[in-house]
Amino acid sequence: MSQFSPLMRKLVESLTILPGVGPKSAQRMAMHLLERDRKGAARLVADLQAALDKIGHCTSCRTLTEQTLCSICADSSRDARQICVVENPADVHAIEQTNTYRGHYFVLFGRLSPIDGIGPAELGLDLLRKAVADKQCSEIILATNPTVEGEATAQFIRQMFNKEAITVSRIAHGVPLGGELESVDGGTLAHAFAGRKQVN
Amino acid sequence: MSQFSPLMRKLVESLTILPGVGPKSAQRMAMHLLERDRKGAARLVADLQAALDKIGHCTSCRTLTEQTLCSICADSSRDARQICVVENPADVHAIEQTNTYRGHYFVLFGRLSPIDGIGPAELGLDLLRKAVADKQCSEIILATNPTVEGEATAQFIRQMFNKEAITVSRIAHGVPLGGELESVDGGTLAHAFAGRKQVN
Repeated sequence: MSQFSPLMRKLVESLTILPGVGPKSAQRMAMHLLERDRKGAARLVADLQAALDKIGHCTSCRTLTEQTLCSICADSSRDARQICVVENPADVHAIEQTNTYRGHYFVLFGRLSPIDGIGPAELGLDLLRKAVADKQCSEIILATNPTVEGEATAQFIRQMFNKEAITVSRIAHGVPLGGELESVDGGTLAHAFAGRKQVN
Repeated sequence: MSQFSPLMRKLVESLTILPGVGPKSAQRMAMHLLERDRKGAARLVADLQAALDKIGHCTSCRTLTEQTLCSICADSSRDARQICVVENPADVHAIEQTNTYRGHYFVLFGRLSPIDGIGPAELGLDLLRKAVADKQCSEIILATNPTVEGEATAQFIRQMFNKEAITVSRIAHGVPLGGELESVDGGTLAHAFAGRKQVN
């Protein structure tokens, strides 16, 4: 990049912090912003700065929001007695799009991973316990990812509440709709067999 | 995106102006910046703002730089009497990486495209004429892209200088090195035949 000016090089480098953006796309982005869309770039600066200044965590479910309570926790038409525990705000988004769940959420922002220094405190599990008590929650739905760490996290939370009169459930794992058996991995297939239901 | 907060929605929307970034990647980027890399995000804001404030065009070759003259035009070891005309700063980058060219450049920032309102004025062709005169240029190398519009642009510039004692050349088109004939498109192959050279 020697023929780029110093500011240009700095901008390209800063853009590579974005997930999925390598040096080549970062260059293309920098050029695009400066050549073709300075107005958009100025808006991006303003919006990102505002987000950094104002967006924090919902005091009840930890998702990202600039309000004290996020729009879901603040929605009185939703059932506060169900709390769905997910790893990321993107998971909330994915579940909301199915239009099947009307309870609350709790966002861990990660999963237990001692190797990365992520323990119960980092996942805000104290806050989860508090939310469960405050909301007189009757069911905790564990929707962490079906990975080794996601399962361990689900297991840990299950044990946290095993002395309480609360239903703790785990979302079903099995063959995805539209999937073909021959292209599904062995682990999923094993789950699908273990979780089979009688249909007659 | 209804379960995202207003500021979050604005940020996601702003991120989609980046080339190659759709709503889904923009969401992932926004989450990443706010959840995992606020320091990087702050640096991105600062660097993008600095770039917007300070980066303009080189007064001689029009490339993006915060200096009056870009590092190539300011480099006295380079031959100012060769000017290579390209469509974008990224093309300068590509040519510089070959380490074969030691002349100057002129960046059009586009190509003639009457349908998009891009004419000779938008490409700064007056400045090109001035640069050619100022630098006592002896050769103009046309390295616009081998597309219909790129060719038309090259043709237009060739005609601009056809009354002057200046060599105007076009970069060679043909079969790329390492390419296999059977996978090269017909247009390229036709060019390769028309531009064949005697080798004995």
